[in-house]
Amino acid sequence: MVLRLSSLFLRTLREDPAEAEVASHKLLLRAGYIRRAAPGIYTWLPLGLRVLRKVEEIIREEMASIGAQEVHFPALLPKEPYEVTNRWTEYGDGIFRLKDRKGADYLLAPTHEEMFTLLVKDLYSSYKDLPLSIYQIQNKYRDEARPRAGLLRGREFIMKDSYSFDIDDDGLEASYQAHRGAYLRIFERLGLNIIPVAATAGAMGGSKSEEFLHPTAIGEDTFVRSAGGYAANVEAVSTVPPAEIDFSTAPAARVLDTPATPTIATLVDAANTIAPRSAGPWTAADTLKNVVLAVDLPTGERQIVVVGLPGDRAVDLKRIEANIGTYLPTAGEIGVEAANAEDLEKHALLVKGYIGPGLSLDAAVLGSEGSSKLLYLVDPRVVSGSSWITGANESGKHVFGLVAGRDFGWDGTIEAVEVRAGDEAPDGSGPLEAARGIEMGHIFQLGRKYAQALDLRVLDRNGKLAVVTMGSYGVGVTRAVAALAESNHDDKGLIWPRSVAPADVHIVAVGRGEEIFAAAQKLADDFEAAGLEVIYDDRPKVSPGVKFSDAELIGVPTILAVGRGLVDGAVEIKDRATGEAENIAVSDAVQYVLSTAGR
Amino acid sequence: MVLRLSSLFLRTLREDPAEAEVASHKLLLRAGYIRRAAPGIYTWLPLGLRVLRKVEEIIREEMASIGAQEVHFPALLPKEPYEVTNRWTEYGDGIFRLKDRKGADYLLAPTHEEMFTLLVKDLYSSYKDLPLSIYQIQNKYRDEARPRAGLLRGREFIMKDSYSFDIDDDGLEASYQAHRGAYLRIFERLGLNIIPVAATAGAMGGSKSEEFLHPTAIGEDTFVRSAGGYAANVEAVSTVPPAEIDFSTAPAARVLDTPATPTIATLVDAANTIAPRSAGPWTAADTLKNVVLAVDLPTGERQIVVVGLPGDRAVDLKRIEANIGTYLPTAGEIGVEAANAEDLEKHALLVKGYIGPGLSLDAAVLGSEGSSKLLYLVDPRVVSGSSWITGANESGKHVFGLVAGRDFGWDGTIEAVEVRAGDEAPDGSGPLEAARGIEMGHIFQLGRKYAQALDLRVLDRNGKLAVVTMGSYGVGVTRAVAALAESNHDDKGLIWPRSVAPADVHIVAVGRGEEIFAAAQKLADDFEAAGLEVIYDDRPKVSPGVKFSDAELIGVPTILAVGRGLVDGAVEIKDRATGEAENIAVSDAVQYVLSTAGR
Repeated sequence: MVLRLSSLFLRTLREDPAEAEVASHKLLLRAGYIRRAAPGIYTWLPLGLRVLRKVEEIIREEMASIGAQEVHFPALLPKEPYEVTNRWTEYGDGIFRLKDRKGADYLLAPTHEEMFTLLVKDLYSSYKDLPLSIYQIQNKYRDEARPRAGLLRGREFIMKDSYSFDIDDDGLEASYQAHRGAYLRIFERLGLNIIPVAATAGAMGGSKSEEFLHPTAIGEDTFVRSAGGYAANVEAVSTVPPAEIDFSTAPAARVLDTPATPTIATLVDAANTIAPRSAGPWTAADTLKNVVLAVDLPTGERQIVVVGLPGDRAVDLKRIEANIGTYLPTAGEIGVEAANAEDLEKHALLVKGYIGPGLSLDAAVLGSEGSSKLLYLVDPRVVSGSSWITGANESGKHVFGLVAGRDFGWDGTIEAVEVRAGDEAPDGSGPLEAARGIEMGHIFQLGRKYAQALDLRVLDRNGKLAVVTMGSYGVGVTRAVAALAESNHDDKGLIWPRSVAPADVHIVAVGRGEEIFAAAQKLADDFEAAGLEVIYDDRPKVSPGVKFSDAELIGVPTILAVGRGLVDGAVEIKDRATGEAENIAVSDAVQYVLSTAGR
Repeated sequence: MVLRLSSLFLRTLREDPAEAEVASHKLLLRAGYIRRAAPGIYTWLPLGLRVLRKVEEIIREEMASIGAQEVHFPALLPKEPYEVTNRWTEYGDGIFRLKDRKGADYLLAPTHEEMFTLLVKDLYSSYKDLPLSIYQIQNKYRDEARPRAGLLRGREFIMKDSYSFDIDDDGLEASYQAHRGAYLRIFERLGLNIIPVAATAGAMGGSKSEEFLHPTAIGEDTFVRSAGGYAANVEAVSTVPPAEIDFSTAPAARVLDTPATPTIATLVDAANTIAPRSAGPWTAADTLKNVVLAVDLPTGERQIVVVGLPGDRAVDLKRIEANIGTYLPTAGEIGVEAANAEDLEKHALLVKGYIGPGLSLDAAVLGSEGSSKLLYLVDPRVVSGSSWITGANESGKHVFGLVAGRDFGWDGTIEAVEVRAGDEAPDGSGPLEAARGIEMGHIFQLGRKYAQALDLRVLDRNGKLAVVTMGSYGVGVTRAVAALAESNHDDKGLIWPRSVAPADVHIVAVGRGEEIFAAAQKLADDFEAAGLEVIYDDRPKVSPGVKFSDAELIGVPTILAVGRGLVDGAVEIKDRATGEAENIAVSDAVQYVLSTAGR
C-alpha cells in the first residue's frame, strides 16, 4: 500500500525536541518515527513501526536459518521462578515489581532464563530431544536509574532473546557458535558495523561470553582494541603477566624509616632520597600499593578484601567486580567500593598509608593465612620473584626489596587495574587503544547454573539423569533501530540502510499541475506493482522546499521528484546517502530503482 | 520451512490437564499450542504462535483495507492521563498498578483511549487532518478476579484496538460503519460465526455501541435474539411499551386493608379475596412493585433510588446499572444493589412491603418532587393510564386502581426488569430467546468524552477550535484463537479453519521403509515449493497410531499419509474436518491439496 503523506499519521518537526540529546533520538522524534510516552518508554508511529518490523524480520530469518524456533512468553511473570535463582533479590531496584489483587508478587520480566528453562523442563525429558534453540521477540522491562538517549536505554524495550539447550559442553559450544554466526549475519544485513568483544558473564553466571558492540562515540560501553584485531570489554581484558624472576640471588628485604609517606608520590621521593638505586631512580611502578576494598555480598554481608597492585596503576572497581566472584563465598550480584573509615577501624592491623603483605612468609599480615585473615589478591604483574617497595604495617615505615613468592604470598590474582592505552593485547596483536560502543547483542555460555537451580535434567545416552547446559543470546531490537539511526544520518536527517528503510522510494510531486500529480500517482502504483515500497508526497498545498526537507529528514534511500522535467518525459532520482541526482526517463524509473535496490 | 516433528518444540499430551475446564483450553494445552505461566497468563509455543500470527495478519489486512494505520503504544504507562479521565480510580482492582524506583505511579494498560487521544493531540491540529483511524495489536493487562477458560479470559492478553477521530458526528458514523464492515470481514475470514448485538457503552462512555458475539454455550455474555434477526446484549434490549390508556372514565383509587401482605404473592391472594375482579382474577402483573436500590457513585457517595415495575417481573440490576447513568449527578463506573437495612432506616417514609408512589399527585411520596425526595424511576410498561395495585405507604394497606399519570408521576423510565424468553423484540421481529456468547469484538461511538477530558481540539472549517469526536473498536486476538478452537474441534482434537491453521498439510510417514521417508520428504519439499505450509511427522520410531492421533489432535486441515500404498504410487489424503479419506496418486498430491486449499 502506497503511503500517502496527505493521510499518513505523521508530523515532522522543524526543531530539535528539548528532550533529546543524541542525534538518533532527535531525528527519530523529528521525522515522526517515535514519541515519548514516559521516561524511557516510547510509542511507535507508523514509519517507526515499519523499520522495527523489518529489523525483527531479519532477526527471525537468521534465527530460522540456525533452526531456532520462535515462542512467546508473557511479560508479566510470577515471582517464584526468579526466587529459585535468587534473581528476584539480585535485581534490586532494577526491575519493576507489582502485586495482583490477591497480593501475589509479580515482576515485569527483564530477561526470561527461568521461564525458558522451566518450559523445556515441562516439555522435554531426553538427550534425544536436544539440541534445542528457542527464542522470542518480546517486550522487556528494566527500571533503569537513568533511561537515556531515547531508544538506546529504555525502560520498556524489545529484545530478541534465545536460549540453547544441550546435553554436553560440545553441544553448547556448537549452539553458541551457530548463534555467533547468526548474529554476525544479522548485523551485516542490518548494515550495522559490529565488533564482537570478549566479555565477562557478570550477573548472568556462566563462562564464555561475547558482546557485539557497535562502535560509536555516544556508546555507554568502553572497550579496548588492538590494530591486530583483538577487541574486548575492559572488564574482560586479561593482563599479559611478565615472566617470573629467579630470586635465588636477590638481597634480603630491609625495613627503612619513611616518615610522612602515606602516598605513592611521597614514597617514591623518599625512596630516591634515602635509598637511591644505581639502575636509575625508583618510580611508582616499583612500589606495591595495597588497596583495601569492601565487597557487598548478595547475602547483605560486607567483606573486606585487600588488592595489591603496582603503584603506577589505578584500581578499576568494575574490573574487580567482574572478576572477584570466584574468590567470594556466594554467587550473585555484588558491589565493590573503597573501604570506608568504619570498615578500616575494625581491622587494627591495617595502618593507613603503610599497609603491606608482611615482612616474611612466616609473618604474613595480608591473606587468609595472614594475621589479618583478610583475602589478599594481587594484580597479575606481581609475579614470583618481582621485588617491591611496600608498606611495613607500621606508621612511617616501608620495606624495600620485598620479593613476591619469597617474602610474601597471596590468595590469588585478579584483574584489578585500569587498562591503559598502550597496554599489550593478551593475544600479542599489539598495543590496546580505548573505544566506545553500544552493546547490540550479547551471547553467553550460561552452562548449568539455571538448569541446576530449576532442576532441568534429561536422560542421557546411558539412561541417567544429566543436567542440561544452556546458552543465552540477546539482541536489542529497539536499540538496533536507534543505533542504525545514530550511524546513518547527516545534518538533513536520517539515511536508512535499504534493508530496514520504511520504504524503498519517496516520490515527491513538485508543482501544482494536475499532470504532475497524475504522473506521480502512476509511478507510485508502478513501483508498488514492481514490489517496491513507496512513500508518495501527494500533499497539494505544500511547497517543494518543505517536501524535499521532509523527504531528507525521513531518510528513504531513493528520492524521486516529479516536476518540471515531466514535459520532457523525465524525473529526477536522488540517492539520499550520496546526494547524487540524475534525470531519468519516466519509462525507465521503475527499472532504475529496482536495480538500485538490488532486486 | 517444513516443520519436522522430530525437532519441533512440541509435546502432545494424552490426558486432559487438570487445570483446564473448557474444550478449547484442554485442546490447546494437549496439542502443544500454549502453556500456562501463571493464572490467566500464557506462553505461546511454536504452533500456537503460528495461529496467533495468522489471526493478527487477517486483522491487519482488514484494518489496512479501511485505511487504518498501525502504531504501537507501550503497555507500561504513567498514571497521569488515566487520572485526567478518572479511570485510574474507576478501574478499582481491575488493573495492575505499580511504582517505579522513584515512586512514580504506573499501570499496565487495560485499554489505551487516553494515549491515543493524546497522541493525536500531539500530532494533529486541523479538521483537514481528519478523519483518522489508528490501531495497534498489543498486550493488554487486566487483573481479573477470576481468570478462566484459558485464553478466553486472561490477565495478559492481546487485543487489536483502534480509535477513530472525526470532526463531526457524520464522520464518526462513517468511521464506525467502516470498522463494523471490517469486523464482519475479519470474523468471516477467521471462520468465526458472529452475531453483532446492540450493546450499551457501559463504563466507556459514549453512545452507539455493538458487541460482536460468538454464540457458544460456554460464553460469559448472555444476549437475546429473535427469529427475525434482532440480537442484543440483555442490557441493551429496549422494552416495547404498551399504548397509553385513556383514564378519563377510570374509577377513583381506593385504599384497602391488606393485612400481612408484604409480598406480591400474599398481596394477589388478598386482592382476589377482598376485591375480586369481574374480568378475571388479579395476577402479579396487576401490581406495581417498588424496589429500593442503593447506587454507589464514583464519588464514593451512596444514593437511594426507587424503581417501580410490574409485580410479575424481577429486577435486573445489571440492566439498571447500564441504563441509570443519565439520571445520576456524576458520570463513571457505578454499582447498584438492593438497599440494605441501614439504607432503609434513613428513610422513615418507606414502609417495607407497602411502599407506593403516594395516593395522589398532590400527596406524592416517591420521586424527587415527592415527600421522600427519592428518585423514582419506572419500567416502560408503566404507561400513562395504566392502573395498579400498589403500596399505600402504611403497614397493612394497599391502594387499588392507582392510575399512572392521574394519581402518580415519576422522574423517568428505566429498563429495569429481567428480559424473559417470549418478550417481544423491540424491532417487531418476534419473540426473544436467550443465548450465550463470547464477546469477540466491541465497537463504540465514544463521542467527545475523552477528547473533552484531554482537550483534543482542532481547527474546524471556520477556523474555530472544535472538540474531536472519537470511536473505539476492539477485537480480542488471543481470545479469537480460543474461540476458534472452541468452535472447531471434535473428540479427537482441533480442526482449524484453513485461514488460521498452523499449516496446510500434515504429512505422516507410516512404516519403517527408507523409501517411505524419502517419498514423504520429497512431498514435503514439493508442497513447500508450491507455497503450502507443511508439518511433516518424520519421527522414525513412533507408531502409526500415535502419529495419526497427534495429527488429529493438532488439527491441520489436510492429513496426508505416506505408507503401504506407496508401492502403487498412492498416498492417502484425509480431510480433518469430515474424516473423508481418498487415495491419490503421489504425482497428483500437490495439485490436489492446492485446490482443496483454494489456491
